[in-house]
Amino acid sequence: MEKQNKIGYLGPSGSFTEVAVKNFFKNECFQLCPFQTIPDCLQSIDLNELDYVVVPIENSIGGPVHITVDWLIHEVNIPIQGEVKLPIDQDLLIHPKQREGMNNNKDRFQKILSHPQAILQCSRYIRKNYPKIEIQYTNSTAEAARIISENPDEPLLAIANSIAKDIYQLETLKKAIQDYPNNLTRFVVLGKKPYLVEAESKDSKYKQSLLLALPMNDLMMLHKVLGIFTEYEIKLTRMDSAPMKTGMGNYYFFIDIDTNNTSDLTLPFNEIEQLGYNVRQLGRYPCKLYTEKLSS
Amino acid sequence: MEKQNKIGYLGPSGSFTEVAVKNFFKNECFQLCPFQTIPDCLQSIDLNELDYVVVPIENSIGGPVHITVDWLIHEVNIPIQGEVKLPIDQDLLIHPKQREGMNNNKDRFQKILSHPQAILQCSRYIRKNYPKIEIQYTNSTAEAARIISENPDEPLLAIANSIAKDIYQLETLKKAIQDYPNNLTRFVVLGKKPYLVEAESKDSKYKQSLLLALPMNDLMMLHKVLGIFTEYEIKLTRMDSAPMKTGMGNYYFFIDIDTNNTSDLTLPFNEIEQLGYNVRQLGRYPCKLYTEKLSS
Repeated sequence: MEKQNKIGYLGPSGSFTEVAVKNFFKNECFQLCPFQTIPDCLQSIDLNELDYVVVPIENSIGGPVHITVDWLIHEVNIPIQGEVKLPIDQDLLIHPKQREGMNNNKDRFQKILSHPQAILQCSRYIRKNYPKIEIQYTNSTAEAARIISENPDEPLLAIANSIAKDIYQLETLKKAIQDYPNNLTRFVVLGKKPYLVEAESKDSKYKQSLLLALPMNDLMMLHKVLGIFTEYEIKLTRMDSAPMKTGMGNYYFFIDIDTNNTSDLTLPFNEIEQLGYNVRQLGRYPCKLYTEKLSS
Repeated sequence: MEKQNKIGYLGPSGSFTEVAVKNFFKNECFQLCPFQTIPDCLQSIDLNELDYVVVPIENSIGGPVHITVDWLIHEVNIPIQGEVKLPIDQDLLIHPKQREGMNNNKDRFQKILSHPQAILQCSRYIRKNYPKIEIQYTNSTAEAARIISENPDEPLLAIANSIAKDIYQLETLKKAIQDYPNNLTRFVVLGKKPYLVEAESKDSKYKQSLLLALPMNDLMMLHKVLGIFTEYEIKLTRMDSAPMKTGMGNYYFFIDIDTNNTSDLTLPFNEIEQLGYNVRQLGRYPCKLYTEKLSS
């Protein structure tokens, strides 16, 4: 019998990350290991307790998931082995007991619970509909659902997905409350060994992630780096700065480039290093887009 | 009698932002108006209820303050009129009643409360010393101090500054627990009318902030933009991406440049616009560095 991969992810059960795991590893049997926080996931793979972990890294409305980027740069050195993009609908959930006794006065709700990213994705909706509500941040959207399921007598609301609604036996007060359409979250699969998807490797889109450390924090050197990418016809899909933590104004640049499974990028990377940059390769990996929306 | 400026800021009393306000406006009388959240501050200035607001925008360890950047780009259109940089010491605080009955077992503490940025700045310290503690995010560090002062019988810890410690009559369990030295936070002063500091205007350093929208999200166009900055010898101090919210992969670039009170930047900005970029000017403003650390 083949050994099952152990996959860690940002839980609890019913989180968006769990859907990303099930999509990325859909052709094999695996063991799901939910963790309470993103650092817990990354620390566990760093200690070789797992084969892969899946964590959110970016949302199209809320932007980068800061704690993931921070840990990939500063706390661990684990290559990215895959990417999953997932359309996200944030639903407003309520405990059935709260709904029963419900009057139309929205002011009776004291708190709305969710992950900071979900709160960002729905911030206009919350301010418009519940201007006085207190916001309580949780480690994941599914955790918010779990908490309101355990406190049926409290006037709480949660923002989470329809899977969490089913698992924690809640009801939907309003579907898809995110402020903008085209809401996608990008998850990364991290692990020490490459994840081979033989059947798909030919057709898959690939990305390569890099971390650039600038010499003497001269931001204008970036002009020369982008010149090298232009010369080699390398297409950037994302460029973001991240603090070096050595002092205000010192930044790394986290860059994603469009590539395939075979291109040799040694020459452009060497040229960038000759400028005095440090180039840290964070992995080359297949990208999957899961197009079907979650349904309840 | 001169009319006092009304200054809104991320409160409550004792927050780091309050220290930034007192430093920036130190030569005048003003009325302090604390707000519970950053959006509340920005909404209030947008509705002309205040003269200026001060909010954190970046920390040298934790990176950008996402909600501030998000609101400046997407929710309001208020120019930046000033910048204050402040050294930050994050202290671990405890209620005196909890300290009295204290044994050496750190496991007895159930929760640590603070603003997400402060948690990021101290994340290694927390994981090493309190690996099992639950983290509860608050709207500001001072709010964390206020909450533990109101719950003397609960085994809680807060991360906040020494001013909050004094205001809420707490004790310091450990000073300066941030993971890296050189911990600075950058605050921006926002308002509809320029803030003139006559005596200082000649010697002050100035910055100009810009928001660039790329044509067709072609990141390689950035190479041309940086070429224009190089040609005009304009020095960038910061460049960061932010989601356009129109779909995954579409970004604004938030750029800060070194300038003075008088340089005319019309020509380079025109050249950038001729490339097809939209250039939104977010303000030109004096920058102050407050070098003295807070002391208890």
